[in-house]
Amino acid sequence: MRISVEELKAEFKRVLLQIGLRQENAELCALVFAENSRDGVYTHGLNRFAKFVKSVKAGEIKQDSVPTLVRSMGALEQWDGNFGPGIVNARFCMGHAITLAGQNGIGCVALKNTNHWMRGGTYGWQAAEAGFVGICITNAVATTVPWGGTTATLGNNPLVISVPRQGGHVVLDMAISQYSVGKVLQYKSYNQELEHFGGYNGDGNLTKDAHAIAESKRLLPAGFWKGSGLALMLDLLVSVLSEGRSVKHMTEENTEAGVSQLFIAIKPGNEEQVSAIVNEIIDFTKTSQPAKPDEPVLYPGENTLKTRVKSLDEGVWVDEKIWEEVKGL
Amino acid sequence: MRISVEELKAEFKRVLLQIGLRQENAELCALVFAENSRDGVYTHGLNRFAKFVKSVKAGEIKQDSVPTLVRSMGALEQWDGNFGPGIVNARFCMGHAITLAGQNGIGCVALKNTNHWMRGGTYGWQAAEAGFVGICITNAVATTVPWGGTTATLGNNPLVISVPRQGGHVVLDMAISQYSVGKVLQYKSYNQELEHFGGYNGDGNLTKDAHAIAESKRLLPAGFWKGSGLALMLDLLVSVLSEGRSVKHMTEENTEAGVSQLFIAIKPGNEEQVSAIVNEIIDFTKTSQPAKPDEPVLYPGENTLKTRVKSLDEGVWVDEKIWEEVKGL
Repeated sequence: MRISVEELKAEFKRVLLQIGLRQENAELCALVFAENSRDGVYTHGLNRFAKFVKSVKAGEIKQDSVPTLVRSMGALEQWDGNFGPGIVNARFCMGHAITLAGQNGIGCVALKNTNHWMRGGTYGWQAAEAGFVGICITNAVATTVPWGGTTATLGNNPLVISVPRQGGHVVLDMAISQYSVGKVLQYKSYNQELEHFGGYNGDGNLTKDAHAIAESKRLLPAGFWKGSGLALMLDLLVSVLSEGRSVKHMTEENTEAGVSQLFIAIKPGNEEQVSAIVNEIIDFTKTSQPAKPDEPVLYPGENTLKTRVKSLDEGVWVDEKIWEEVKGL
Repeated sequence: MRISVEELKAEFKRVLLQIGLRQENAELCALVFAENSRDGVYTHGLNRFAKFVKSVKAGEIKQDSVPTLVRSMGALEQWDGNFGPGIVNARFCMGHAITLAGQNGIGCVALKNTNHWMRGGTYGWQAAEAGFVGICITNAVATTVPWGGTTATLGNNPLVISVPRQGGHVVLDMAISQYSVGKVLQYKSYNQELEHFGGYNGDGNLTKDAHAIAESKRLLPAGFWKGSGLALMLDLLVSVLSEGRSVKHMTEENTEAGVSQLFIAIKPGNEEQVSAIVNEIIDFTKTSQPAKPDEPVLYPGENTLKTRVKSLDEGVWVDEKIWEEVKGL
């Protein structure tokens, strides 16, 4: 079924106030959860909301915490998220990176002791909507196998890069594993094989078998040795610059609480000139002869915008069962 | 055969002075070409030297050019490379990003109208040796196929990320294609099949056949859709921020002259504390059970250091035929 963004947001806000989030935090978290579903990222919108509520109730997420400044070095700042809601911390820190970039051309905020930011793309869109280039990185519990290994000691450490454009921003939002855990479970539930290797089975061999990967919990990095190196560097960047917890700590404590993140904003030139450059690059990329004649090459964020338009026109798609559960919270 | 770094550098410098590079540019380019071979990146050391000389003689590389400032916004600057030697421009810009980071915590230099930087890792090592985190990006002529397409409209747009550490910096230096052109040609020369898909054949199908890829010139991005999105974003970042030439221009003009690059330096905290965090992350990553018992998981830059030590001990390995050619220049 489909319901309006406003109804979705109002329901989220009701629950969040009820479990004790302060007014402005409830407002912001409700908005972001609703927007994530609106943009088609259901796994980090409605479908993840009950888990967030549970984490707040369990005290893993401190609903009253606000981020505090640790150290300022001009255009670079370190902040402590004090285990508050990941959405609130991440929005604040990207907002602050944008302010620093407005003053210095580039701004960087390293954040420690925060929680899951839900959809990383949220903060890339935030930068682009303010007219800035954005780069966001988070670490995560180990699910991904380094190249040359067979057991998971890397996070899938999502990377977000966004570039503003009149008429539709370009926003890449990707985890470094070839397939996400959610995607593997989806293939498993349909009894389908992955199109490409997605992880290792219990014997340490590469496999496309979603059942085997769901059981082994050993995801393959995108591009084998390439994603392996990149995932490691992303953990190094966020942990070194925030002086916060690395994949090791989350994995050993078997919790994704208290992650480390990085937010960079960069001020590009004149808005129309930037859009012209972006259009030129996208148009050229799209001249690649499509594999299927009726399916042209897409740019990162293109499907998001299509889904958003549909959601705003026809309402946001919700899983009826999950929606009823949230209404009962 | 093996010769000393000093001899390699002296020979490079002799040739570069002869073709008209000013003293300090000849010194720097000779050093970097020699160090690239010393570190085992022969394709962008000795083996590429003659091509560099040819490009200078042809006037594609302006040996006398120096970078000029276009625009300053505090911690972010735009520079014009004026089609000078890529090594000189890149070293200058990373050096300048480091200076800006020393003053502001983070520094970013966007560079347009430059030339091939040879080994991207050079500038990552430069940042790390100065005690800074480094990020470097360049674009390149289209060799790589966007996901959903079958012909090349993306550059392999190398990405470098470096983190300093006492006892050995961590430096990722990777093109976004799964295999580089050089690697494909190497497999082809040995009549070997690639271990994984490396590109598309002339019919637009994924293949491991090095001959077919060498002929079609259609490389696969690392991680299929993931590398495809990343390669596009990297071209957007360098082109938008430098307001320079994108992959489109290089491809349409069929030359890799006048590329766009980005150099970011970030100041981490206390050196010993940083090293402790880096060691902890690397040590944890290495706890992954190795696929082959005697081959532990490696971190990016680990093999580089081993090769460097061997080169300094026993001399730098050179292809005798190429070495003789250079001596005859």
